[in-house]
Amino acid sequence: MTFASPADFRAALADLRGPDQGAIAAARARQAELTKPAGSLGRLEEIALFLAGWQGTARPRIARARAAIFAGNHGVTVHGVSAFPASVTAQMVANFEAGGAAINALSGAAGLELVVTALDLDKPTADFTIGPAMTEAECLAALNAGAAAVAGDLDLLTIGEMGIGNSTAAAALCLRSFGGAAADWIGPGTGVDAEGIARKTAVVERALACHLDAPADAFETLRRVGGREIAAIAGAVLQARRLGIPVVLDGFIGSAAVAPLAADNAAIAAHCIAGHVSAEPGHARLLARLGLEPLLALGMRLGEGSGAAVAVGVIRAALAAHDQMATFAEAQVSGSL
Amino acid sequence: MTFASPADFRAALADLRGPDQGAIAAARARQAELTKPAGSLGRLEEIALFLAGWQGTARPRIARARAAIFAGNHGVTVHGVSAFPASVTAQMVANFEAGGAAINALSGAAGLELVVTALDLDKPTADFTIGPAMTEAECLAALNAGAAAVAGDLDLLTIGEMGIGNSTAAAALCLRSFGGAAADWIGPGTGVDAEGIARKTAVVERALACHLDAPADAFETLRRVGGREIAAIAGAVLQARRLGIPVVLDGFIGSAAVAPLAADNAAIAAHCIAGHVSAEPGHARLLARLGLEPLLALGMRLGEGSGAAVAVGVIRAALAAHDQMATFAEAQVSGSL
Repeated sequence: MTFASPADFRAALADLRGPDQGAIAAARARQAELTKPAGSLGRLEEIALFLAGWQGTARPRIARARAAIFAGNHGVTVHGVSAFPASVTAQMVANFEAGGAAINALSGAAGLELVVTALDLDKPTADFTIGPAMTEAECLAALNAGAAAVAGDLDLLTIGEMGIGNSTAAAALCLRSFGGAAADWIGPGTGVDAEGIARKTAVVERALACHLDAPADAFETLRRVGGREIAAIAGAVLQARRLGIPVVLDGFIGSAAVAPLAADNAAIAAHCIAGHVSAEPGHARLLARLGLEPLLALGMRLGEGSGAAVAVGVIRAALAAHDQMATFAEAQVSGSL
Repeated sequence: MTFASPADFRAALADLRGPDQGAIAAARARQAELTKPAGSLGRLEEIALFLAGWQGTARPRIARARAAIFAGNHGVTVHGVSAFPASVTAQMVANFEAGGAAINALSGAAGLELVVTALDLDKPTADFTIGPAMTEAECLAALNAGAAAVAGDLDLLTIGEMGIGNSTAAAALCLRSFGGAAADWIGPGTGVDAEGIARKTAVVERALACHLDAPADAFETLRRVGGREIAAIAGAVLQARRLGIPVVLDGFIGSAAVAPLAADNAAIAAHCIAGHVSAEPGHARLLARLGLEPLLALGMRLGEGSGAAVAVGVIRAALAAHDQMATFAEAQVSGSL
């Protein structure tokens, strides 16, 4: 067990290491010598420096990368918060295993190994409008399931989720972590109409009221208004940080899993890239709160880690340029301005 | 020779065919059956439909794709409009051929074959502030060099350029094609300072005044204030349209090559994707005039087709999802909303 107790999880979150500044400086020095005007590759240059820092080398590589997808079911679906029946979670996990989902195609195109972790799908979380979604033991087990999906030799980890009803849990997490109005964090999810959004809003407001006097730290917020796949994402993100593995976050739900951690320690997202900003209205606001600038904006709103997987193509391009380009001296190009 | 005369070029531009609507409808019908909420892959779904239309099939593929890069030199560099000496154009072409430039790394990462066409680098265009940049024969030769780079069996073409001084030519093309103020279309290019921008602005204003009474059609604008690599891009875009090959445009200069064509026939960009919006200030305005929504916004400003090559990774992801995903029936997933 990676996190032996809630206290152990809290201690890990309080003690975050930063990137390797020497590797970043060495990577920056290399960039200054490559045959292009300084800064002309824009965000690609930043990505190369970011990966240099977390991989601890001036020439970062992606030899082994994984898409870790977590699935869970939510008691809150009894309130009609999703356009799909809860049975779809298990059906989609079967689809992942059979190779037929978007993430299968997209992780294949991005050169990612796909690891799917289904968390007690036959045992939905409790309805968090009337009590905590999970017991302490259940939340700890989910955090550890997430941590277990992070192999130590990964060069990059992308994270995704599947869970009917989980955009409602994500909104509750954001509201409890960052405040604002419930409406700031609520959107159509996979496609509910205006009435569905009104139901989601009422559910989130009831949930916040129910847990108003409970402790507000990351562990308690995750177990009270999160879900198993959401806690697993939080565990994976924290474990990746301990191992120095850079992470690509996906959409609203995956980013919301980090919100309670960021409320406790704002440095938690430093090893994360926001793969994209989704069409879910609260996502852009959430990324701003996490201090992350999304790499892509393609109007995606599928989940499954789909946007993160597409972003890996851009990240691979950034590293190809950083690693393979000639220097001005090697190419005998006049580089002085 | 593909374009036998200026009149032949004008006739080709006046007679543009559209995409295959039946293939688009068939691709759309397939998308509705795939195991995801309708529309949830956002721009990826639009890309798949776009390629279906131009490839004429419900299941578009990218088996053979090419990055065509054109290089030329510009007489207007005598006015100090670039941060780099004109000799860098030939040095960078040698770098392309040796495999050391950004486009080598990025086209490799995107699975693109790279074809570099250097156009009379030892013979810069004439200074267009005092007369036409090219003779009719020179402009026609450049258009045909561009057309010749478009193999008929390509599934996708990306286009890039290299030419010290060509962001000044590009600004002149935009101004002559779409109007506005010179400042609307002028920026730092590869990195000139405020004085350099002032020089560029003065040069572009003198160029426009010099050619004020000359014919304003696409061929005349290209030959008067364009350049060889710019005319080659225009020729490649038009030839790709005749062959039904979708094109990914790159940055400000590559998009500016299409501006005179769009002023004559607004439908010319219909087979084009804007790979990205660059950091050059006029590019966003130019794409809006061309009716194109950029796929990426990564602050790139290198040229060489670099942004278009990065965009190909997203396009490949779009086709992977469209082609490989299971339908609701195949996966036995509840798809009804």
